[in-house]
Parts: sequence; structure tokens; C-alpha cells
Amino acid sequence: MRIVKAHDERKNEIIDTAQNLFMTKGYSACSVAEIIDAIGIAKGTFYHYFKSKEEVLDAIVNKGTDMIVNRIYKLLHDDKLDYIEKIVGSLFAMQIEDSMGGEILDELHKAENSLMHQKSIYMIVNRVSPLLEELIIQGNTDGVFKCKHPRQYLKIILSSSVTLLDDGIFPMTKEEKMEIFSSIVDLLEQILGVEEGAIMSKLKDYNL
Amino acid sequence: MRIVKAHDERKNEIIDTAQNLFMTKGYSACSVAEIIDAIGIAKGTFYHYFKSKEEVLDAIVNKGTDMIVNRIYKLLHDDKLDYIEKIVGSLFAMQIEDSMGGEILDELHKAENSLMHQKSIYMIVNRVSPLLEELIIQGNTDGVFKCKHPRQYLKIILSSSVTLLDDGIFPMTKEEKMEIFSSIVDLLEQILGVEEGAIMSKLKDYNL
Repeated sequence: MRIVKAHDERKNEIIDTAQNLFMTKGYSACSVAEIIDAIGIAKGTFYHYFKSKEEVLDAIVNKGTDMIVNRIYKLLHDDKLDYIEKIVGSLFAMQIEDSMGGEILDELHKAENSLMHQKSIYMIVNRVSPLLEELIIQGNTDGVFKCKHPRQYLKIILSSSVTLLDDGIFPMTKEEKMEIFSSIVDLLEQILGVEEGAIMSKLKDYNL
Repeated sequence: MRIVKAHDERKNEIIDTAQNLFMTKGYSACSVAEIIDAIGIAKGTFYHYFKSKEEVLDAIVNKGTDMIVNRIYKLLHDDKLDYIEKIVGSLFAMQIEDSMGGEILDELHKAENSLMHQKSIYMIVNRVSPLLEELIIQGNTDGVFKCKHPRQYLKIILSSSVTLLDDGIFPMTKEEKMEIFSSIVDLLEQILGVEEGAIMSKLKDYNL
């Protein structure tokens, strides 16, 4: 008997299977034929959902970024948090380490998966910056922030955070990493026009 | 008659041949055996110079970065330039576009070469920041700059520049790119503690 699976279920099955294969064999070494074989579907079924192997990779990265975006979305709509707490929480939510789990992260750092890595940087910056931009514009209106170019400054801060704080791209000692992190926070305070230490003092709650 | 080539000459031959092959076929698809065949050397000769294919890739990226570093080194030792002109010149020298030529750049942007791309970001940031750090520390001493954390701030600015301004990672319209670029300059002015527009006004000489 032929089992016809619901659209989303089948699509997720392709994404999950491909992710496992990419993690085990590396993206470059894995072919569409192998993904198809592993699930036991027809070639046409694969191409009904995805145009290419790279499109599956985009879907995997998008799914990983969804977790980060959802977490930030919740923080931004939490009435118990003030502006600074929302910013601080988002900085932490953005760390891929937290959202994807160590195993996937180790794989991301393998040479063969540098494309997935590069796509993650792009997607995190491009999906997170509009969310925080809205928060900063609101903060400017409320007189909490004095930030000149919210969109551009966010892209600068976010791109350097996800690149520099990533062990796979910039191997650093724990001390160097902490120095970079506190300089990013320091710069963020200047960019937002809040007083020195305003963000750093909140960070202590996170037991850095 | 067996031709014994000088050490550096042979090493460069391996680097250049590998670079051509990686550009044509993509890094992942190209094996050490193919590099060896293309030059017509023994396997042992290859492994005398390099431990692995990835070590050749590192050498290629290092060579590309040498051009940027040499150019910045010259700028920093040009007595006709003031502090700001040296900073501005270095920002331009750092653009991979300038130093590697369009053809190589197009290849860098291809999916298969994302590892080369990622390594370039790391090497440019790590080799350029100590050079500019020295300039900024000197500028602090001379009272031209008031920069709190030269090393860390440079890493933040350089990593976001090479990532965000790279069409291969962040496809943008020309207008978006100009907005990001002028915000980076704006932020750099704040970081260095120079007056607003001090760097931007010098940039006009570059016909942006």
C-alpha cells in the first residue's frame, strides 16, 4: 500500500534526513540521490519540494534560525522586561551555541560545512536585525535610546558578533573572547546612547 | 634528466596549480592526486611541502592576504599621509575586490569555495588588526585619537566590514551597501574619538 504523506510532514522528513546526512558526510560529499535513497522516495518527490541540494541547505539553516528568531520574538513581547533586558536577552539568544546544541555546532565548524556556516551568518543577521531595529526605534521615541542609524549599526554589531564569537571562524582563548564580548557590549552602549555600564551591569545576571 | 627545482619555486608551483584547480573545479571536488598529476610531481614531493589539501588552501589565502598587508604596510610608512589618511587608505586596501581581481573574487563567492572565503575573513582580520592597532596606539599617544580598546574595536570593525561588504555573503543593492559603509565610517569616527565627518570628508578624495 502506498503511503501518501502530508505536504509539511514529507518536506520536514527531507530536511531532517538531509541534515543528518550533511552532518555525517559533509555537505559537498552528499548527493541528492543519497538523500532520496535514505528516505526511500522517488526523485520526483524530492524535486517537488526542492529545486536543488542547496535549497535543502537553505531550509536547514532557516529552521535553525527560526529557533533564534522565536526566542527573540518572545523576549521582545515580554512585558516584564525593560529595553536593556530585551537587548541583552537577544544577544544571548543569538548565540548559535545555545540554539542548535553542541553536536550540530561541532559539525558546522567542520571544513565541509563552511557553506552552512556562511549561510547561518547571513540569515541570523538579516532576520534578527529588523526585530531589534523596531525595538530601538521605539526606544528612541521613548527617549531611552539615542541611536542614529539603528538598521546599519545593528547589522555591524550582529555581523561582528556572530563572526568573531564563533570558535569555528575565530579560535580564541576564553580571555580573548571575553575581551571581545565586553568591547561589543561597550560599543553597543555607545551606539544606543545609553550610559556606560548600562548593558554590562545587566549582563551580570547571566553569570558570565 | 631530472629537473630539481628550488624549494620556493616548487612550493609556489604547487600553490598556483592548486589555486587554478580549486577555482575551476571547486575546492571540495579537487583531490591531492589531481594537483600532483597537473604538475607532474611525485606524491612524496607534494607531502614534502604540505601536510594536506587544506594546508595548500591556507597558503593560497595567506598569499592573497599578503597583498593587502603589504599595501597597508606601505601606507603606514608613508610620511606624506596623516593618521586619518592612513586609516582611510587601509579601509580601501582591505577590500578583497581590489587586491585579488574580479575573476578570483567571483570564484570565492561560489558555494564550493566558502571555506576559502571563511579563511580569508579570519586571516584579513587577524593580520590587519595588529598593524592598525599600532597606528591607533600611536595616535592615542599623540592626542589625535581617544580610542579605549584599539585591538577589540578594530576586530569588530574589520570583521563586520569584510563580512557585510562582501557580495558573496550579503547580497545588497548599491544603495544599501553605501549606507552600511558610511555607518561603518561613522562608527569608526566615534571609536577613534575624532570629530564627526573627519574620516568621511577624506573619503571624498576616493570618489565614492
